[in-house]
Amino acid sequence: MSISKNKIAEIKKLAQKKFREESDCFIVEGIKSVSDLLHSKLKVVEVFATVSWLAEHADLTKNVNVVPVSETELERITALTTPQQVLAVAQRPHYSLADIDFADALLVLDGIRDPGNLGTIVRTADWFGFKQIVCSPDSVELTNPKVIQATMGSFSRMKVLYLNLPDFLKNAKIKGKIYGTFMQGRSIETVDFQQNDVLIIGNEGKGISAEVEKLVTDKIHIPSFAHSADHAESLNASIAAAVVMYRFRM
Amino acid sequence: MSISKNKIAEIKKLAQKKFREESDCFIVEGIKSVSDLLHSKLKVVEVFATVSWLAEHADLTKNVNVVPVSETELERITALTTPQQVLAVAQRPHYSLADIDFADALLVLDGIRDPGNLGTIVRTADWFGFKQIVCSPDSVELTNPKVIQATMGSFSRMKVLYLNLPDFLKNAKIKGKIYGTFMQGRSIETVDFQQNDVLIIGNEGKGISAEVEKLVTDKIHIPSFAHSADHAESLNASIAAAVVMYRFRM
Repeated sequence: MSISKNKIAEIKKLAQKKFREESDCFIVEGIKSVSDLLHSKLKVVEVFATVSWLAEHADLTKNVNVVPVSETELERITALTTPQQVLAVAQRPHYSLADIDFADALLVLDGIRDPGNLGTIVRTADWFGFKQIVCSPDSVELTNPKVIQATMGSFSRMKVLYLNLPDFLKNAKIKGKIYGTFMQGRSIETVDFQQNDVLIIGNEGKGISAEVEKLVTDKIHIPSFAHSADHAESLNASIAAAVVMYRFRM
Repeated sequence: MSISKNKIAEIKKLAQKKFREESDCFIVEGIKSVSDLLHSKLKVVEVFATVSWLAEHADLTKNVNVVPVSETELERITALTTPQQVLAVAQRPHYSLADIDFADALLVLDGIRDPGNLGTIVRTADWFGFKQIVCSPDSVELTNPKVIQATMGSFSRMKVLYLNLPDFLKNAKIKGKIYGTFMQGRSIETVDFQQNDVLIIGNEGKGISAEVEKLVTDKIHIPSFAHSADHAESLNASIAAAVVMYRFRM
């Protein structure tokens, strides 16, 4: 047994926010995600991997603590239904206001609660060249295992900060406009986005909160193009974020 | 007790594909989804609802079998963590090739496996005025409770068919082009979509299958706009579908 019972218990606890906060660590699972992690600047605490994975990735792991494990041992520590050869424990990244580049595009999330949505938004933002996301404190936490999973490795390339949004939007050195998506708002078709603009996406059910709404300079809306009123009432938050980011980049 | 143990068992079984196929029924939960169901042409078998919901929706339910239930009874039949006042059992819709309008936009899904992705795609398609979706037989089934949930009521407005895709694409009366998303393909920015075109979205991991690929007339690609190669490798399938449908409608 190359991995102790205590160690297994410790790793499994990292599925809970409380223990991630205490230890300041989080779990990354799967070949693609761990590879992206090891290529990033994030600090890796320990890598648990099968002998075959380790043999193939010797160059990637030379400066990292490595624990060879059997498939059975991996099954005992994984949160996935099918463990994928490797699991890493990494230190949680911490960014501050000083890390934000206000000349660059900025995505703001006001209360995204679903881990799949946040993970998908991080992945999509990474695809569309966004490098920074500010979340409200009530948004789901980036290092939640379901979020990390849904980012498909993009967590390792994205600066994600949690800040009080009204304070941030009032006091930060935002140079562009502050766009927010609303049911009523001008069509994104008519907007001429600039590189230093801010895009705000709201909560899955409630949208953008009243306090944040006051600080939005331009309300925008994704047109449905449907000819009758009898159609979907809204879009999923990660879909709305994707369409707005695509339009921003076009 | 206004709902028998047998009835509870019958309803709970509808979470499984096998029993949905046997009974040709499926479950719809929640106020928004059941309301959309009752406004649609789909046949409703039975509605289980609290007395307060029934009092508020008397007009909607006058031609439907109604079973008043307590909150506790709803908790026993629901698949949700928080039951939402009403659960309906409906007959599964069945569409055939003859129901497809080849003059209208058509979305084709080749092996979408994740229920959340299919549900989100149906919801997004409904938002962007698509009325019909053809899925490969290995795609997740529309009336899976997680799919129905993610559609947010849009299941009731969408024709969803399951057909052998190579046969369909070869033999159906498709008048427009057959676009498929690939890692290599021309940018969607350069495409002039027509109303009778077909859009194919592939499986979450493997993309469009080799047999279907042969029948694609135009390979397309969602540009990443990222300046370095170090970014997300791909987009989530429901995100890709949304961006292509948005571009189609612009």
